[in-house]
Amino acid sequence: MTATTFDAPTVIRTKRDGGALSDAAIDWVIDAYTHGRVADEQMSALLMAVFLRGMTNAEIARWTAAMVASGQRMDFSHLRRDGKPLALVDKHSTGGVGDKITIPLVPVVMACGGAVPQAAGRGLGHTGGTLDKLESIPGFTAELSRNHIRQQLRDLGAAIFAAGELAPADRKIYALRDVTGTTESLPLIASSVMSKKIAEGTRALVLDTKVGSGAFLKTEAEARELARTMVDLGVAHGLTTRALLTDMNTPLGRAVGNAVEVAESLEVLAGGGPADVVELTLALAEEMLDAAGLDGVDPAQTLRDGTAMDSFRALVAAQGGDLAALSAGALPIVTHSETITAPRDGTMGNIDAMAVGLAVWRLGAGRSFPGERVQSGAGLLIHRRPGDPVVAGQALFTLITETPERFEAAMAELDGGWTVGDAAPAQRPLIIDRINA
Amino acid sequence: MTATTFDAPTVIRTKRDGGALSDAAIDWVIDAYTHGRVADEQMSALLMAVFLRGMTNAEIARWTAAMVASGQRMDFSHLRRDGKPLALVDKHSTGGVGDKITIPLVPVVMACGGAVPQAAGRGLGHTGGTLDKLESIPGFTAELSRNHIRQQLRDLGAAIFAAGELAPADRKIYALRDVTGTTESLPLIASSVMSKKIAEGTRALVLDTKVGSGAFLKTEAEARELARTMVDLGVAHGLTTRALLTDMNTPLGRAVGNAVEVAESLEVLAGGGPADVVELTLALAEEMLDAAGLDGVDPAQTLRDGTAMDSFRALVAAQGGDLAALSAGALPIVTHSETITAPRDGTMGNIDAMAVGLAVWRLGAGRSFPGERVQSGAGLLIHRRPGDPVVAGQALFTLITETPERFEAAMAELDGGWTVGDAAPAQRPLIIDRINA
Repeated sequence: MTATTFDAPTVIRTKRDGGALSDAAIDWVIDAYTHGRVADEQMSALLMAVFLRGMTNAEIARWTAAMVASGQRMDFSHLRRDGKPLALVDKHSTGGVGDKITIPLVPVVMACGGAVPQAAGRGLGHTGGTLDKLESIPGFTAELSRNHIRQQLRDLGAAIFAAGELAPADRKIYALRDVTGTTESLPLIASSVMSKKIAEGTRALVLDTKVGSGAFLKTEAEARELARTMVDLGVAHGLTTRALLTDMNTPLGRAVGNAVEVAESLEVLAGGGPADVVELTLALAEEMLDAAGLDGVDPAQTLRDGTAMDSFRALVAAQGGDLAALSAGALPIVTHSETITAPRDGTMGNIDAMAVGLAVWRLGAGRSFPGERVQSGAGLLIHRRPGDPVVAGQALFTLITETPERFEAAMAELDGGWTVGDAAPAQRPLIIDRINA
Repeated sequence: MTATTFDAPTVIRTKRDGGALSDAAIDWVIDAYTHGRVADEQMSALLMAVFLRGMTNAEIARWTAAMVASGQRMDFSHLRRDGKPLALVDKHSTGGVGDKITIPLVPVVMACGGAVPQAAGRGLGHTGGTLDKLESIPGFTAELSRNHIRQQLRDLGAAIFAAGELAPADRKIYALRDVTGTTESLPLIASSVMSKKIAEGTRALVLDTKVGSGAFLKTEAEARELARTMVDLGVAHGLTTRALLTDMNTPLGRAVGNAVEVAESLEVLAGGGPADVVELTLALAEEMLDAAGLDGVDPAQTLRDGTAMDSFRALVAAQGGDLAALSAGALPIVTHSETITAPRDGTMGNIDAMAVGLAVWRLGAGRSFPGERVQSGAGLLIHRRPGDPVVAGQALFTLITETPERFEAAMAELDGGWTVGDAAPAQRPLIIDRINA
């Protein structure tokens, strides 16, 4: 069959009936969709068929390669700092609740000598997006030219930018998946993540694969398969790739939202912050430094000695952010808040990440449709973590929004997502496993 | 859950995960899609989920009712002829190859005193459409106003019109299904057929449910279930409904295309024509007359005495058709033809309906995209039917098109779709079963 004989209904029917798509069919459909010769309604029917019928590893590999090839792959291999090639390394999280780790992590890796070319995303469904969070810093922009990215990487050691023209097929497909109920699919998640990360020009990649109620994939088996699939895709494209499998049943840290997560990240960069956020930041930093071949550096030291904070301030300044806003209390002001208090004495039980994610989304921190403005100030503070002792009447959660009519729906989402009991809940390890090539 | 809280991704996910859609969810999604508040890409994801997950009978019933309610339901119950209400009755075929039965059948029923309000369709995929065929008569139009339909029904006993504003949700969904590989789905076929037939205002309905290689459903079990589902939907909406299950492994008659099928229908109306076309026409006529409560009439007599031909000519004239074109040889002229001859002496074997349907589609009698002009003259003539003796070199098929560059693809489709052997193929009954309410 030659390329000219493909047509969308035939390709869709092949997958619909449980068949595997040929390399040529995948190349054709991704190229034709990128250029508008396959319509949105045809691609969404194909995505639903992929969701329900799955893809072989060979199909996922080809689909990913075709999405990379739909745009230009960036290449920073020629850049030098002090006469040496850059230690290019990046991290990607499959998405969680309260997952602000990129914000302290990138400066730690910068301070340790790495160079992070991070194509970052916006929030999807109940999960937050790094760009939405960073844009709560007045002036901060992620719309960087290729020249700007190159310069920042060389001079500062990081750039956090909107994926923009990288893997344009993925950009179109990602937007479709969000509105057509086809997000939680292993082949579609793996190919989406990896096409952007391959195209962004990093040489090494550490994947934070989330599992649990607040993750897109709920079971350890699924998350493990996703991690394995993504590691294999990275390796096949010449990237040193590894993954951590981490728990996302409970939100990370005490702050979930946009500006509130930046504020918590600043605490970590100042040497404090919640233990789980610090633990995951350092574990990922160690993986990244190892993958980039940087030895003899101690990421924890950069939090203690202030060099990570210096790197973060330099990064924010280079991307137009107002450094004065990083002082305590200067981030977007709380306009309306509600507090939830403990109904009884006892011990804080589990806090369900999905319930918190949906509550924060209802408060205005996330989007209901593409392009919607998110509220920088909206979010939720967790005052008592699972296992903490609790006294009746004590504040457990604070909900924040610019639009108080949102409280009711947010409260409803949170309802049933937490308990106060007599015994501490069973402790789960944050880092479940490490998956290597 | 109140109507205002529905959103398309949630409805899609419910069906995707194998759940049943609530009445309220179905009403919402059909109404929202009709009015553009659910996007094409969302509906096509839902249609693929329906295709792969199916629907319960309750869902099909509600989906059909919602499509009827998306437009106005016509009502001819007040019309009188000779002081009596009209014997309103219609027939629908699920689509086959060479299926011109509507063309001789409607005049037979007219001549027997029935009144046929037929909302007819255009070709879909490899199957022909009644409107495409009738429009090969110069001047014939199916774009009739409601007043015109009413008048023709009362004065002549039939109107064959484009479904137009009937069940507008179905019109949009039908067009989507054609380009997204979601045609061959029992719930979607049943709801599409029945929403139009319920909305067109008939009181009785006979369904010709096709089964075999040239039908949308290939197995008798599927076709039987489709027939049963449609009969139940008709009865639930107050229509006297029954179905015949008929064979569609072999094309009907000797002519497949547009003008060539009108010419063959004229032979039948003149008292001749292929035996299978006459058999099916009379069987369906008897069912229709019985369902409409018209006894003591003999449909075969109307073919012998010329009254059916008179009714057809009156119908064509009322809808603007040029009666002079109905004389022998006056229909659109053959421009290019190719003949396939017998490779050896023997007996004609099976002729595969799907192969013939696809060949005729390739010749230009059908569409590759919505709105494409079809060739009136394109088609295929079958000179030797299965079981006929054959002499080497004898003409078996004639292929006709306005565009000779189409011959190659048409020949390729036909290849392997017929044989000449030593023994006659096993005879299959044309009418397999009759399904009553």
